[in-house]
Amino acid sequence: MSSIRKVGVLGLGLVGASLAGALRRAGIEVVGWDPDSDAIRSLRRKRWLSKTALDPDRIEGDFQVLVLAGPLSVNESYLRLLAPRRFSFTVTDVGSVKTPIAKLGKKLLGSSFVPGHPMAGGTGSGFSFATKNLFEDRPWSICGGGEKQQRQVKKLIKAVGAHWVSMTPEGHDRTVAQVSHLPQVLASILVSQTSKSKEPALELTGPGFADWARLAGSNPELWTEILDANKTSVVKEIKKLEKALARLRTEWEPQSTLKKGKEGYERWQNTSKPRP
Amino acid sequence: MSSIRKVGVLGLGLVGASLAGALRRAGIEVVGWDPDSDAIRSLRRKRWLSKTALDPDRIEGDFQVLVLAGPLSVNESYLRLLAPRRFSFTVTDVGSVKTPIAKLGKKLLGSSFVPGHPMAGGTGSGFSFATKNLFEDRPWSICGGGEKQQRQVKKLIKAVGAHWVSMTPEGHDRTVAQVSHLPQVLASILVSQTSKSKEPALELTGPGFADWARLAGSNPELWTEILDANKTSVVKEIKKLEKALARLRTEWEPQSTLKKGKEGYERWQNTSKPRP
Repeated sequence: MSSIRKVGVLGLGLVGASLAGALRRAGIEVVGWDPDSDAIRSLRRKRWLSKTALDPDRIEGDFQVLVLAGPLSVNESYLRLLAPRRFSFTVTDVGSVKTPIAKLGKKLLGSSFVPGHPMAGGTGSGFSFATKNLFEDRPWSICGGGEKQQRQVKKLIKAVGAHWVSMTPEGHDRTVAQVSHLPQVLASILVSQTSKSKEPALELTGPGFADWARLAGSNPELWTEILDANKTSVVKEIKKLEKALARLRTEWEPQSTLKKGKEGYERWQNTSKPRP
Repeated sequence: MSSIRKVGVLGLGLVGASLAGALRRAGIEVVGWDPDSDAIRSLRRKRWLSKTALDPDRIEGDFQVLVLAGPLSVNESYLRLLAPRRFSFTVTDVGSVKTPIAKLGKKLLGSSFVPGHPMAGGTGSGFSFATKNLFEDRPWSICGGGEKQQRQVKKLIKAVGAHWVSMTPEGHDRTVAQVSHLPQVLASILVSQTSKSKEPALELTGPGFADWARLAGSNPELWTEILDANKTSVVKEIKKLEKALARLRTEWEPQSTLKKGKEGYERWQNTSKPRP
């Protein structure tokens, strides 16, 4: 089993660019590409990317792993581009929804494609917010692919300071609907409603509001694609939440809601420790 | 108009104890009391409290402002205790709900009572999490009281680095239902539901979840009292949210939801700056 010496990254937004930095720190060479030439220039200046170009129309090179870090639909087009070729590297992606791309990847690339998703993000998006530490102690799902190829991706995950979690694509998508996509929708609704209230509500926000209002500042186009791709699971989570809210409103037993929340919080505190 | 030289604080939890530290830093003497004698001892050791005791059964002293920093029902009992007395200080409170206590305070103490609420908090509760910086650049609502007494409270607010916002008690309570109480309820529901899911969902939480899941770790007893006191406004906010969720689920136009959230976020970024 060869070690990873070189990685290709297609798409240099927050995740792709941070990945370049984190891999470079681990002594791994990175070749990359992005439609925004400023991103390429900036990362080359930082020496996170090597001078060699990665041509998105041909996608070839002597790297061991190719990471698709573009929007979902763009990553899918890369899979279609790769399908008729012969190549020796492992292909993985870092998108937020796994069911559709896992299905397409398996059909087109077989065991060469390892669907992946790092649970990492930040206040800003785009290469200028990239940081080498983005994946430090973060969980990173892998949802399929051949055994040998999974081992390659696990090496990459370890190299950038994250830890892997194995899940089915469907289980992953149900989970991110709960822990990421529903919170995103809620932040958007609540910030929007608050900003329209008659009282100067936006002046009266405390640290609790600030912490999760930042989600509402995310890129609407990117998130629309994510929510569309995970509609079934998100709708299920919305229904569950509506039911819980209606129950609280009609039965009005806030203590029971709060106590269950506290119990869940303590379970979370005990289980969310990074795995060695 | 006399300046503030000494302040009394009844209740030394996170807010009361932090207030003692922040006032002390501003050169103001603080006398205080709490049912937990560890809190008193600890704050005296830090020199945030002077040696003089503040007797909660008599509540007298040469301070200019008395701050009620206990749970809502305890603060109400202090108002009842003060009502038949003659005293020269201004009385204010720091509770999360203003309509009931503003009404009671006006009836019992007239213009001497200034209902107040600093929008400040943190991950932990209790005196051991107290910090002198808790109120730095934070908004602090004042919702009534005489003109002279309001000026006293504004001096106190300024002394601890916060800025005041004038609101009616009802407007305040509608606002905190939006920016604080509903988020609290949502965090409790979502963390509880996530912790019960079949998938290892709690292992897969990213920074977005972490930021606001911490709300679910709050003290359920304290929060039950807050939600009970603001039930009408909280129920209204729950209904508004249910409606928005049902609309998103049936019409499925996530882009419109996300765009409105982004617009609200930008309004918030522009308006939530601390006022000089």
